[in-house]
Amino acid sequence: MEDFRELGKRLSNWGRWGADDEKGTTNFITPEAIVAAALLIRTGKVFDLGVPFGPDGPQSGAGGRINPILLVSETGQDQAHFPGAFHYADDYIFMPLQAASQWDAIAHVHYDGKLYNGFPANTISPHGAKRCSIEQQGKGITGRGVLLDIARHRDVEWMQVGDMITPEELDACAAKQGVQVRSGDILHIRTGWWKKFVVEKNREEWLKGEPGIGLACCEWLSRHEIAAVCCDNIAVEALPGETDKEILPVHMVLLRDMGMTLGEILNFEELAEDCARDGIYEFFFCGPPIKFQRALGSPINPLAIK
Amino acid sequence: MEDFRELGKRLSNWGRWGADDEKGTTNFITPEAIVAAALLIRTGKVFDLGVPFGPDGPQSGAGGRINPILLVSETGQDQAHFPGAFHYADDYIFMPLQAASQWDAIAHVHYDGKLYNGFPANTISPHGAKRCSIEQQGKGITGRGVLLDIARHRDVEWMQVGDMITPEELDACAAKQGVQVRSGDILHIRTGWWKKFVVEKNREEWLKGEPGIGLACCEWLSRHEIAAVCCDNIAVEALPGETDKEILPVHMVLLRDMGMTLGEILNFEELAEDCARDGIYEFFFCGPPIKFQRALGSPINPLAIK
Amino acid sequence: MEDFRELGKRLSNWGRWGADDEKGTTNFITPEAIVAAALLIRTGKVFDLGVPFGPDGPQSGAGGRINPILLVSETGQDQAHFPGAFHYADDYIFMPLQAASQWDAIAHVHYDGKLYNGFPANTISPHGAKRCSIEQQGKGITGRGVLLDIARHRDVEWMQVGDMITPEELDACAAKQGVQVRSGDILHIRTGWWKKFVVEKNREEWLKGEPGIGLACCEWLSRHEIAAVCCDNIAVEALPGETDKEILPVHMVLLRDMGMTLGEILNFEELAEDCARDGIYEFFFCGPPIKFQRALGSPINPLAIK
Amino acid sequence: MEDFRELGKRLSNWGRWGADDEKGTTNFITPEAIVAAALLIRTGKVFDLGVPFGPDGPQSGAGGRINPILLVSETGQDQAHFPGAFHYADDYIFMPLQAASQWDAIAHVHYDGKLYNGFPANTISPHGAKRCSIEQQGKGITGRGVLLDIARHRDVEWMQVGDMITPEELDACAAKQGVQVRSGDILHIRTGWWKKFVVEKNREEWLKGEPGIGLACCEWLSRHEIAAVCCDNIAVEALPGETDKEILPVHMVLLRDMGMTLGEILNFEELAEDCARDGIYEFFFCGPPIKFQRALGSPINPLAIK
Repeated sequence: MEDFRELGKRLSNWGRWGADDEKGTTNFITPEAIVAAALLIRTGKVFDLGVPFGPDGPQSGAGGRINPILLVSETGQDQAHFPGAFHYADDYIFMPLQAASQWDAIAHVHYDGKLYNGFPANTISPHGAKRCSIEQQGKGITGRGVLLDIARHRDVEWMQVGDMITPEELDACAAKQGVQVRSGDILHIRTGWWKKFVVEKNREEWLKGEPGIGLACCEWLSRHEIAAVCCDNIAVEALPGETDKEILPVHMVLLRDMGMTLGEILNFEELAEDCARDGIYEFFFCGPPIKFQRALGSPINPLAIK
Repeated sequence: MEDFRELGKRLSNWGRWGADDEKGTTNFITPEAIVAAALLIRTGKVFDLGVPFGPDGPQSGAGGRINPILLVSETGQDQAHFPGAFHYADDYIFMPLQAASQWDAIAHVHYDGKLYNGFPANTISPHGAKRCSIEQQGKGITGRGVLLDIARHRDVEWMQVGDMITPEELDACAAKQGVQVRSGDILHIRTGWWKKFVVEKNREEWLKGEPGIGLACCEWLSRHEIAAVCCDNIAVEALPGETDKEILPVHMVLLRDMGMTLGEILNFEELAEDCARDGIYEFFFCGPPIKFQRALGSPINPLAIK
Repeated sequence: MEDFRELGKRLSNWGRWGADDEKGTTNFITPEAIVAAALLIRTGKVFDLGVPFGPDGPQSGAGGRINPILLVSETGQDQAHFPGAFHYADDYIFMPLQAASQWDAIAHVHYDGKLYNGFPANTISPHGAKRCSIEQQGKGITGRGVLLDIARHRDVEWMQVGDMITPEELDACAAKQGVQVRSGDILHIRTGWWKKFVVEKNREEWLKGEPGIGLACCEWLSRHEIAAVCCDNIAVEALPGETDKEILPVHMVLLRDMGMTLGEILNFEELAEDCARDGIYEFFFCGPPIKFQRALGSPINPLAIK
Repeated sequence: MEDFRELGKRLSNWGRWGADDEKGTTNFITPEAIVAAALLIRTGKVFDLGVPFGPDGPQSGAGGRINPILLVSETGQDQAHFPGAFHYADDYIFMPLQAASQWDAIAHVHYDGKLYNGFPANTISPHGAKRCSIEQQGKGITGRGVLLDIARHRDVEWMQVGDMITPEELDACAAKQGVQVRSGDILHIRTGWWKKFVVEKNREEWLKGEPGIGLACCEWLSRHEIAAVCCDNIAVEALPGETDKEILPVHMVLLRDMGMTLGEILNFEELAEDCARDGIYEFFFCGPPIKFQRALGSPINPLAIK
């Protein structure tokens, strides 16, 4: 097994889009790719890939992340101070930006003192990330989406903790589904892990580990010039991973070396059902992050449109 | 001037999409309309209509709304507890859900004890809205977008406080722009108000009032079967409004009687420049709300794609 | 068993200190009582009764309460913008006001549409409590403190879930300890429940129920003109309580009928050791609430000084 | 004028109470001092020195500090899920720990990479302060309080921005008031600045600068073995200060070199009136911080009791 540092160096996109680039692999999404992706909207069916943001979400408090807390500042019921009949209701949210469905900003992880494209890790301060924050993806992320339904390919409801997806399996699944992956695609990998959460409603169990991709897939993602990779688990990659010596090596290679944004905790269930029904695993994808300044991530509710 | 209650009753959509409907006018967006809208993606240019979410936003604390507060829970610099090289950065957000670019949930306003479709106002509690919350729009809001650039039509950088847009002006602007409004459109009205904020950076001044539509436009929006209306100001409607007797009568008619969602504090500047350049004021629009459960609104970063 | 409503009516302090009173039984604390209490400071030993406020606190998220979340807004390490050498660190807190050691505001509970002293329950809105908020106790709560160490009296490390303390037991414990309870005292009842949490560190277990006082003690507290009652558990009263028909009847009688403030989740361990050693169960007590406007409670760190 | 570094070195308490000390000058408060202070409680009058914590507080958002935001999570009005009559109201707070009346933790400021007692500045991380956090003062701060009413001494309602108090003025004021300062005292210096805020209610004006002590007072505080110094302004020291080369040099010397905790934004108005009336400027003081783990400060509501 190649060391993640060597792999990262080999797959590195540092400098590829200029010394100042903070967008990484979403640079693969060309205007032409977007125009082509629009043609995938054939029936007008919309699938919302975001999970609900609320008290029943998957966070347990572990790792410093809680479920979003909504607090209502106005119900409207005690308002007599406005002229006329007007009543309004308002609310606040307090939450980790990576509490539920989310994009990781490229600045989300680093090693050896460097972020993607060689920016120093100390550009991240209590005020946020000066470089590679989620704002940089503000004009995206939209284009062609492809679903690889690995759980269905394996004929299981959901894969198990630690189950590791290989490049060969990605190829086999794509072939079986009759879909080709192209440069600039936003790739969606279904492990069934979200379904497990919905069925079992057991946070502790759900967060103990997960199925996902292994290090070898990084090269596959690089070779196919994938723009972003999304998954229905919490970290895209299999946990526990290949070795005991590192945690989250796939995060390190994809985000820090390749500049590839990750979409996590998405719900592919309805979309996957539909794809199985019509055999069409490609679609128009639109998942803009909220432009939180200097943020390390953003809540999302991406739409897949067929 | 017709009283807002009479107007609201005349334009009411209560029951139109069933007694249980919580989506309102976004029901006008048909699959066919989405397919047609996709054809507007001709060059692959993407415009992000969301404003930045940060400390320099337009909120002053007035009305109980502040700018989002980002707090970094991990910078990654003091992490020695992970096996291997992994370092990560994480953050929290605390903010009103209507702090910057946002959809109003239909439950956002009410009068006479009723929300849209007759749901009782007391379905809103400290736990949020049981009915007509922003979650209901989770599969949207996407379709054909049309920009009516009223500020340019008036040949001003921005309109003034209290300037009221009439239905005749909407028609004249559309005619001059050579664009037709259709059933299911998401309508964008540019007053230049956001530009004023960017240029002057004066919150107090910006929040004192605003240009916008008047009550008479409600009928126009109803007649054209608009799905949602967006603006570059804070409340869509002109402030101060037509009479001293009521505040925000347009909110009451649109949200509560018609069930029409409002998009507020959007940035149309780059899009408007482009439309003026190519003369094309229609585009594919994709502005999914985050699915905050029982929430009265959601931050957004809608994309307009041409 | 007398119904809690009848008991509450019988022990009611409504009107006792005037129709506008919002302080309740802390009115029993006279200047003379404070002067007398000062004489209990004989050795200068200080015991802090507040528990730590942090991530390892007793809240599990159940009942909508989480442990306090501290977020550092400045570490000082990246500050080059100040003239000279100055660096500073700052932080934010997000928490329920009743997350750890706390006073309940008298407005914390109500029944039959009324708060203490007959104030309508709808004086509580999303903006907080107009009446009987914690601010009303701003000049207190200080005076003579008395510890009744029931766990020691029973010769157990800690009492068990549902164990109910009776008035007779309070009397027996006081007699054995050689202490007399007086008008205006702040009474501290030790069940050992906090020790259980510290030893077992099991939130779910700790929150399932608790030992505490029963309804019959309300009359005892009333007869002795206790100013406030504090406990080392989460709700002062035994859970489950006397009947299945009501929850928290002691809360209802003490707070709503008698206007008696409750101190919860205190740590009496060090104090109790000292009292057992020197046989002195009385002390000067000073536990001022933070003056959160319109709040339903306040975090505290009361000092017992001997 | 001596450089603050030289002054700090000369007045340094590093090592004075051991290499591990994190309490600093509150070590001057002996049990005997507390017993003696208790004798100052002669009439039982209580003065609460904390200001209200609410939306009308003095913070403007400048410097990253806002006024506390109270959000009610339960009003009790929609609760039908409890057996019996029980209704309860609950709330959350979001705020900077230094939003209103507060203790600075000794870790609040640093320079040249060191905190008080030589602890490295990088012991402060996004997780808070490992050393010299406010928890360390958990058993305090209580003892003899002395008020020096400089504003009254100068015969002004309030002093002006930049007005600097000298050691000679502290002596003259104490002499005129007939009070002597002793080792272990908690010193309160009234500039009238809080009164200015209450009268003028102008945050921006109030935060522009302030009267306070100058660097020369550090030696006076050191010589008198003061345990903690409190003021009715935002930073204890005069702003602007002595030179343009440094900001907050008094903070640096007191907190970082001497380990002296600062109490800020206190309200001495009622106490000062009483002291002027009875000529007694000494009192029992009790101002326990909330034990926020690893925090840089704590909200307080100290009581002065005469």
